[in-house]
Amino acid sequence: MSRVDGRRPDEPRPLVIERNYLMHPYGSVLVSMGNTRVLCTVTVEDRVPQWLRGAGQGWITAEYNMLPGSTHTRTARESAKGRIGGRTHEIQRLIGRSMRAVVDLSMLGERTLWVDCDVIQADGGTRTASITGAYVALVDALERLRREQGWDRLPVTEWLAAISVGIVDGEPLLDLCYEEDVRAQVDMNLVMTGDGRVVEIQGTAEQEPFTVQEMGRLFGLAARGVQQLIAEQRRVLGPLAAAVGRDNA
Amino acid sequence: MSRVDGRRPDEPRPLVIERNYLMHPYGSVLVSMGNTRVLCTVTVEDRVPQWLRGAGQGWITAEYNMLPGSTHTRTARESAKGRIGGRTHEIQRLIGRSMRAVVDLSMLGERTLWVDCDVIQADGGTRTASITGAYVALVDALERLRREQGWDRLPVTEWLAAISVGIVDGEPLLDLCYEEDVRAQVDMNLVMTGDGRVVEIQGTAEQEPFTVQEMGRLFGLAARGVQQLIAEQRRVLGPLAAAVGRDNA
Amino acid sequence: MSRVDGRRPDEPRPLVIERNYLMHPYGSVLVSMGNTRVLCTVTVEDRVPQWLRGAGQGWITAEYNMLPGSTHTRTARESAKGRIGGRTHEIQRLIGRSMRAVVDLSMLGERTLWVDCDVIQADGGTRTASITGAYVALVDALERLRREQGWDRLPVTEWLAAISVGIVDGEPLLDLCYEEDVRAQVDMNLVMTGDGRVVEIQGTAEQEPFTVQEMGRLFGLAARGVQQLIAEQRRVLGPLAAAVGRDNA
Amino acid sequence: MSRVDGRRPDEPRPLVIERNYLMHPYGSVLVSMGNTRVLCTVTVEDRVPQWLRGAGQGWITAEYNMLPGSTHTRTARESAKGRIGGRTHEIQRLIGRSMRAVVDLSMLGERTLWVDCDVIQADGGTRTASITGAYVALVDALERLRREQGWDRLPVTEWLAAISVGIVDGEPLLDLCYEEDVRAQVDMNLVMTGDGRVVEIQGTAEQEPFTVQEMGRLFGLAARGVQQLIAEQRRVLGPLAAAVGRDNA
Amino acid sequence: MSRVDGRRPDEPRPLVIERNYLMHPYGSVLVSMGNTRVLCTVTVEDRVPQWLRGAGQGWITAEYNMLPGSTHTRTARESAKGRIGGRTHEIQRLIGRSMRAVVDLSMLGERTLWVDCDVIQADGGTRTASITGAYVALVDALERLRREQGWDRLPVTEWLAAISVGIVDGEPLLDLCYEEDVRAQVDMNLVMTGDGRVVEIQGTAEQEPFTVQEMGRLFGLAARGVQQLIAEQRRVLGPLAAAVGRDNA
Amino acid sequence: MSRVDGRRPDEPRPLVIERNYLMHPYGSVLVSMGNTRVLCTVTVEDRVPQWLRGAGQGWITAEYNMLPGSTHTRTARESAKGRIGGRTHEIQRLIGRSMRAVVDLSMLGERTLWVDCDVIQADGGTRTASITGAYVALVDALERLRREQGWDRLPVTEWLAAISVGIVDGEPLLDLCYEEDVRAQVDMNLVMTGDGRVVEIQGTAEQEPFTVQEMGRLFGLAARGVQQLIAEQRRVLGPLAAAVGRDNA
Repeated sequence: MSRVDGRRPDEPRPLVIERNYLMHPYGSVLVSMGNTRVLCTVTVEDRVPQWLRGAGQGWITAEYNMLPGSTHTRTARESAKGRIGGRTHEIQRLIGRSMRAVVDLSMLGERTLWVDCDVIQADGGTRTASITGAYVALVDALERLRREQGWDRLPVTEWLAAISVGIVDGEPLLDLCYEEDVRAQVDMNLVMTGDGRVVEIQGTAEQEPFTVQEMGRLFGLAARGVQQLIAEQRRVLGPLAAAVGRDNA
Repeated sequence: MSRVDGRRPDEPRPLVIERNYLMHPYGSVLVSMGNTRVLCTVTVEDRVPQWLRGAGQGWITAEYNMLPGSTHTRTARESAKGRIGGRTHEIQRLIGRSMRAVVDLSMLGERTLWVDCDVIQADGGTRTASITGAYVALVDALERLRREQGWDRLPVTEWLAAISVGIVDGEPLLDLCYEEDVRAQVDMNLVMTGDGRVVEIQGTAEQEPFTVQEMGRLFGLAARGVQQLIAEQRRVLGPLAAAVGRDNA
Repeated sequence: MSRVDGRRPDEPRPLVIERNYLMHPYGSVLVSMGNTRVLCTVTVEDRVPQWLRGAGQGWITAEYNMLPGSTHTRTARESAKGRIGGRTHEIQRLIGRSMRAVVDLSMLGERTLWVDCDVIQADGGTRTASITGAYVALVDALERLRREQGWDRLPVTEWLAAISVGIVDGEPLLDLCYEEDVRAQVDMNLVMTGDGRVVEIQGTAEQEPFTVQEMGRLFGLAARGVQQLIAEQRRVLGPLAAAVGRDNA
Repeated sequence: MSRVDGRRPDEPRPLVIERNYLMHPYGSVLVSMGNTRVLCTVTVEDRVPQWLRGAGQGWITAEYNMLPGSTHTRTARESAKGRIGGRTHEIQRLIGRSMRAVVDLSMLGERTLWVDCDVIQADGGTRTASITGAYVALVDALERLRREQGWDRLPVTEWLAAISVGIVDGEPLLDLCYEEDVRAQVDMNLVMTGDGRVVEIQGTAEQEPFTVQEMGRLFGLAARGVQQLIAEQRRVLGPLAAAVGRDNA
Repeated sequence: MSRVDGRRPDEPRPLVIERNYLMHPYGSVLVSMGNTRVLCTVTVEDRVPQWLRGAGQGWITAEYNMLPGSTHTRTARESAKGRIGGRTHEIQRLIGRSMRAVVDLSMLGERTLWVDCDVIQADGGTRTASITGAYVALVDALERLRREQGWDRLPVTEWLAAISVGIVDGEPLLDLCYEEDVRAQVDMNLVMTGDGRVVEIQGTAEQEPFTVQEMGRLFGLAARGVQQLIAEQRRVLGPLAAAVGRDNA
Repeated sequence: MSRVDGRRPDEPRPLVIERNYLMHPYGSVLVSMGNTRVLCTVTVEDRVPQWLRGAGQGWITAEYNMLPGSTHTRTARESAKGRIGGRTHEIQRLIGRSMRAVVDLSMLGERTLWVDCDVIQADGGTRTASITGAYVALVDALERLRREQGWDRLPVTEWLAAISVGIVDGEPLLDLCYEEDVRAQVDMNLVMTGDGRVVEIQGTAEQEPFTVQEMGRLFGLAARGVQQLIAEQRRVLGPLAAAVGRDNA
């Protein structure tokens, strides 16, 4: 069976990461996974949420948003509706948890890093593209902070990327585009580290519950896909890649 | 290592399901998993959401809420804050998806089933207790609807329950209570059917990413726990249990 | 004329008060007046509203809510609507004023007692049942606070309960159930102390203005009903009952 | 004891009613009770709320608002806060119920009358002044509607006015101004018809519960006060006064 | 061509300014431009917005609102809608900027002056009438503050008024009433000082873009109109008029 | 005096217009004026606002938003705040009016064109850049609609662009960047057509009222600037430029 865009079942879409896309934020990346494009920025605020004050550590929080023109039919702004929807909440919480899992928050001091992911164009996999791109923007932001603060190491403990997998017409496929996504019986998102450990796994039976065997196949497919994305992150980060990881402390 | 309440690592808390707890809803259950207590009600509305009109099928939607006195320190009402928080959104979407996965929506006609889960007392695992209890309330509600409508079978295709697992001090534990939950390095929620298939899996590294081996152990622990809960659901539903499942059509 | 549930015109529904219903709050009561059931909890916060800071006294505030499954057709959540409705506002203000009228706020220090009344099942008289039940939860909460703080007396100055009366088909009836309430021409709620003084009286002509004589009869009926409820509160509170009242100081 | 403005205990403040104050609404009145001034307008909408559609009758709804400059320190706008407060809700519900009690809604057809009470200047008794003034604006609006629709009678069944009473320093006083109101131990609002029947009674113990005897004295004081206000309403309405009342049908 | 109310093209409607209309605010004016009537109040708060704290200067902020009965068909309250609309935002920002432009904010200390403009009756030109009236209320408020604080001069640097102009059926007209306004091809609002300088100019092509020549004619018409309004402000302020202006410092 | 980026006083920043930037919307442009970058998209909805139904014409509405990472310190999302601010309202109303002024709405049928301007990077002049870019996206969207609907002409009646001017240190400057904008005494935005007519003029005295002579100089500077921008729009639109204008009908 061939995929709508001619890819093999285990082939991710091309990942393109454009660093330093904007002039103001500490880190900013325009990330593309095929036609999905997300602008990821990281800004720094010199305080932490109320409940963390005095704890002597930092925090990372994420916000996710789809621009009105990013989808086939216009997506209404949540600012105009006056409410953030459930899907948005779910995704921005996922992004925030993922970023926090690979940063040594105790090194940040009482600072909040705001990770903003604004979807410019949506073609499936916007949450995983957001994580993959935001990670690079976060590394850039932390490197700038490291230099400003004179820290002796980058507080990034692991490599991190995310990808989606799903079962379409009975076949496990890596990195679903929108057309595949709407037809998927099962949908899984995997956030993983460079050493193959899991940060977050979310699997959902869109139509029909799935077997443990199917889950295993999907997981393996996703795990290999994440490593391909991390390879590209490494390449793009160039010399800075060497500073990532706990061993570099 | 002994657990705070003396349980074995693979031992769930006592599950108590009180059916027909209220007089108005089509289905209503007061479910307890240890000290966690959730009131689950199912009501029927004779219309579907806007986007589903004319499709000739029904819908199931869920809402989740913690009562102010359910937690150690008072939980502020989301009605008073004017906004539903991210955690609430995430949980009620999970409950809704889980219920929809085991009901034949095409049999419902243009009706919405509202599944409401109000947490009376919280001691960990409120989302999984909600799913386990709401399932029984849903079966009761659909049986009442079946009789009213003269349907020849119950539109419930699978048994369904949910449980949490986690790694605490390096050890995988089933059905975490609150005190264990706050200390967990890894937290996983599993929603599964009676025939051992997965409806939803959500695993989160709260502190440290987890290995594939750890994920496998957690999954196995949860899978066995779900079957114990389903056994209790069967017992509580009595004769009605025979009507559950696609084969009964 | 016989009433829908066979009661005499001056007969209240059975009042059942279950104390210490939950493990977290300082006071918690599940109160039933016939089929009307309300969960009343009292929690303590160690600060007062902004406008009372520095005044060296405490405050009591109440919130009231109907659970979605409490009514014949599902009641939409105010959290989902993003606004608290007028009826809710009116009732929670009434509950708050009633509780404050019988507590010596100057003894509380800079603390707020939150009285939460969540209607589990509605069959008329939810606001008066809330007051009658919340009063017992409040006594329990204040006794716990008294012991914790070493106060030499309970800061509860009066007994307090509430009941509704109305004119249905020309006849004054005590403690209307829902079916009677919707047919009432006149509706009155009375909040009264153990020594027969009025804390709050609210009388409304639902259809037709009422005469001064009718008001007198309704008032007398309600006044006797309140004393019956207070007798049950006394019984339920057992030895703690002796600590209520200004004279016990 | 003399009152702050030299009135006798049973003397209301001067009531001034300026009819047809504005050019657009069907009825508009600027009412003054002493320094309290409220702009009352009545507008007509050719539809009823959703829940009343098809019932073949009309509806009356009220909104109440205090202008920012009406009080000693500026009152923040509820539009800026994005929420209507509890006090506002309570008052506008009271005004709406009072108006509906004296209008034959079945004559209105599927129309909503909007009664808007905007407090220009507040000096105590704004809710009762609103009712007293809004009644006159309502009569004017209904007379215009009667002429437009060719109805053969005015659908106003009773005269209606409202006044506050309270106990200040142990003495019952009629029509409290702000300075008296803040010192009142007991506060009562009475809405009454021209034939001495009660539409709404609300009595609240602000500090200390009150006895049945006190309630009786307050009630009598208020009842006499209302009749004085109705006399002025009659005078101001001139020839139109003859059309008020069920007997004029 | 004659105008709907018989005015000449360059003739403004009668301006009536009633000072000290209310007893509580520092300044209060009921201003009428023909049938347009706006209640303008100025109150004083002893603090400044967060972002201005510590800057040692004051601030002026404005709020604008149309009462429900001010328009031909009832205007829904923004408090009931829970949101302030775009037109309201635009107008209140305009009023605030205009007032700040003629007050020496550095003299105010850390105070905020709240300028509230509530439209009682709307017949075109409500924003310009608001500015013209609010200016007088502001002068009164600042004079009271000057006396209280013992300042040696009034911190009002310029005279200020505003007027609208428009092109209707090809002809430039001064001070459009509502009926003219809805037919205008071009609409311009001009806020100007007593010495003929511009504080704010807003010109909008409602139907057809306008030429530079048309803009010039409109501007001249408006400029002369503003001076007529300022003459009336001077007359109304009487002896206080002498204190206005930088030269009086 | 030299400008911060070395430009002459009457020199605009480089205008770059990237057409068809996204795949889903009918029109999409990434516009840059120097460092200010705005993503402008135009989508089509097959219905009009409620108040325009049945009028047989179309509508154009605009929304404007700044992305969190677009500014030096992070801009909080209005969706998270639950409200659209006054500045946003003001700008999106300006964009909407400007677009409607140059489109023949009667040709659109009952359709709404949504113009979305999302600021990617802000360095002054975001509202004028939005208009200049949105115009090109609108032409593209209308051309696509024209082809789909078989209209015989493009319903765009005029060329349109916008630019800001201001007085900085006494000198009139064209196209202020952020650093100049914060220091400007006077700020003017001009929206103009290709034949030199005015669609919108907004001039504000930020610090000091300005004279009629100053206004004239600013206007001339802006008018010449707009024509330079329109020249670039023409160039970028290539052959499609010939279809713009009423004469092409």
